[in-house]
Amino acid sequence: MSIITLLTDFGLQDEFVGSMKGVILSINPHVKIVDISHQIDPHDIVQAAFCLQAFYTYFPAGTVHITVVDPGVGTKRAIVILQRNAHVFVAPDNGVLSLLVNDDNYDTIVRVDNSDYFLDAISATFHGRDMMAPVGAYLSKGARLETFGSSLNHHQLVCLDDLLTIEFDGSELVSKVVNIDRFGNLVTNLNARRLKQFQTGCRDDELIFRVGSELLRGLQPTYASVSSGEPLALIGSRGYLEIAVNQGNASNRFSVQKGDRIRVAKAAGG
Amino acid sequence: MSIITLLTDFGLQDEFVGSMKGVILSINPHVKIVDISHQIDPHDIVQAAFCLQAFYTYFPAGTVHITVVDPGVGTKRAIVILQRNAHVFVAPDNGVLSLLVNDDNYDTIVRVDNSDYFLDAISATFHGRDMMAPVGAYLSKGARLETFGSSLNHHQLVCLDDLLTIEFDGSELVSKVVNIDRFGNLVTNLNARRLKQFQTGCRDDELIFRVGSELLRGLQPTYASVSSGEPLALIGSRGYLEIAVNQGNASNRFSVQKGDRIRVAKAAGG
Amino acid sequence: MSIITLLTDFGLQDEFVGSMKGVILSINPHVKIVDISHQIDPHDIVQAAFCLQAFYTYFPAGTVHITVVDPGVGTKRAIVILQRNAHVFVAPDNGVLSLLVNDDNYDTIVRVDNSDYFLDAISATFHGRDMMAPVGAYLSKGARLETFGSSLNHHQLVCLDDLLTIEFDGSELVSKVVNIDRFGNLVTNLNARRLKQFQTGCRDDELIFRVGSELLRGLQPTYASVSSGEPLALIGSRGYLEIAVNQGNASNRFSVQKGDRIRVAKAAGG
Repeated sequence: MSIITLLTDFGLQDEFVGSMKGVILSINPHVKIVDISHQIDPHDIVQAAFCLQAFYTYFPAGTVHITVVDPGVGTKRAIVILQRNAHVFVAPDNGVLSLLVNDDNYDTIVRVDNSDYFLDAISATFHGRDMMAPVGAYLSKGARLETFGSSLNHHQLVCLDDLLTIEFDGSELVSKVVNIDRFGNLVTNLNARRLKQFQTGCRDDELIFRVGSELLRGLQPTYASVSSGEPLALIGSRGYLEIAVNQGNASNRFSVQKGDRIRVAKAAGG
Repeated sequence: MSIITLLTDFGLQDEFVGSMKGVILSINPHVKIVDISHQIDPHDIVQAAFCLQAFYTYFPAGTVHITVVDPGVGTKRAIVILQRNAHVFVAPDNGVLSLLVNDDNYDTIVRVDNSDYFLDAISATFHGRDMMAPVGAYLSKGARLETFGSSLNHHQLVCLDDLLTIEFDGSELVSKVVNIDRFGNLVTNLNARRLKQFQTGCRDDELIFRVGSELLRGLQPTYASVSSGEPLALIGSRGYLEIAVNQGNASNRFSVQKGDRIRVAKAAGG
Repeated sequence: MSIITLLTDFGLQDEFVGSMKGVILSINPHVKIVDISHQIDPHDIVQAAFCLQAFYTYFPAGTVHITVVDPGVGTKRAIVILQRNAHVFVAPDNGVLSLLVNDDNYDTIVRVDNSDYFLDAISATFHGRDMMAPVGAYLSKGARLETFGSSLNHHQLVCLDDLLTIEFDGSELVSKVVNIDRFGNLVTNLNARRLKQFQTGCRDDELIFRVGSELLRGLQPTYASVSSGEPLALIGSRGYLEIAVNQGNASNRFSVQKGDRIRVAKAAGG
């Protein structure tokens, strides 16, 4: 039983996702197709990169993950396949796989240039349907990676380095908001491990978070650790720092946008 | 062939639903997963309770229905399994199952406390993924209810009594709007049976509905029973009283919000 | 392995789509159900007709396509089954199949009047669930078309003739915007073949497109053929003329609505 996941910025109002599924099922009628999200903000490669890293480990080994956030469609940007921990990723080479190739912990990367795996008619505007969907479908049927094209190393992939960069100015960590979720939570690029490292010798209640012009004191275990309507900082379900409002909407409360900074400091005496 | 349905307030923009599906398919690769809605208004347990009651009977016996509208995640609120008419429901114990336990017509209720059925790492913020998804997946594989925890009776469940309460002030029934659907229809908590009981001796065209400051006369069989753009009262596809506008949007027309009251009276002489 | 696709204006917030899936799986537990879109604008038969034509050819032969955009629900409008190129379509007879019956290139049309294929209880407001879902499910199990009702020819179907009409006033083609997609692209009813015919003797860069009060010169191969933020005309992934903004939103840029006209002319000397 093979599985293909789909992560795109195509939205759900048009036929885009449906057409991709038709292509996939025409090649592999037995595959299960799972929608992750099609509501990535249009062309937001950073949001997609963090989303991809957040869900894939919950799927069984062998799953094929197709990510189509592709502002460069129709240009010469490549399509690549990356294998890591028995998961297989198909995406345009535009940085969306950046978080997966960190630390050389991938197995194989292939630049897809064997057009036998594409649809016969390739549009200039929809490579998700005409190229990535069939490539993913053939992978889900067991086609071997090396038959799709030439091997690459991860230095040859486009990498969004600033995704991974948490600035440290001597006293403060500077994270960035990379996602504002359904509930208005501000999800950053600062993971729990990096925060813990910074925090050495300082209790959770001695951390200070600067959000817009406000300061929040303390890292909380869960939303309900504060009263309804109160803001808080916590490690969210992705394992990254989030700013939230219990049963409320932090995005509305703080007027923070994607890309804005959240600074973390230790309280004096912390 | 087993089926799991998902009803949540997670939205579709993030990886939340996708992660739950990965967990489920890792445990039971053969199950069919059906999305009901992930657009329940954030934390609206009442809306979810009425939605749940509206669709489950259309699924085959043996279906597992997971509902995650869970503002109390991370608190001590329990997770429960309820079996009724060969359907199995998994949900937080926060009232979302209220409409199913009415009249003692359930078979079994279990409080889930066997952590063998949870993921190894349980976050404090996403019990849908870490607890309810795996519990549902094991149920879909045939795990017996009593292995999940201790038995409860329905008086031990949190119940949203006011969901069920239709006030009667001597001359008028007072219903509440519990859902505003995609088309702007105002869906109430007054079911056809209760309205029929009230209506005894009175024809459909002798009923008067007070919506905001307006009065509508007559209960219609379908939207097209009135001219395009005209408002009407009818029993909707759920079997509950709805206020609609034929080919229009009643929510915009009447400026009515969820929770607002719709009053029903008999015309003088009715 | 049979497939059913669903195209509706039901949205995803309510239980409507989920209830249809429950009905389908109760009849044919082995079918794969694929959502195309449930975000067709409420009651927009034209948008649905063009969407339907855009995706179905990507599915395998034998697929059943159920389209429920049904403002006339509860009236005497028929439900019909149309077979074409080994694809089977189920829809209300309201014009949504107009683009498929053009040129007599269908195989069979049946008016569904055998109520054995409906649910026992038929609501007056939700024939998608009570009639079209079970009809599609039985078709996916191999029920023969002639058992559903009497045969029709395509002149007996409701046809939205103006869908197909591209006016030609002697010097200009006049197309209409029938969809504004997720990215704000303005998708017209002018297909590549008709444009090519008009264009005879004129290069792509000699075409002039009038959008609102602006003129765009040249037909481009893809979005990235112009600079980021610049508008362009191109043949989109459907094979129809689109007006777009590279990495931007043409709908916002031009303040164009669905139904508005896009005119095409040849440059003087073209």
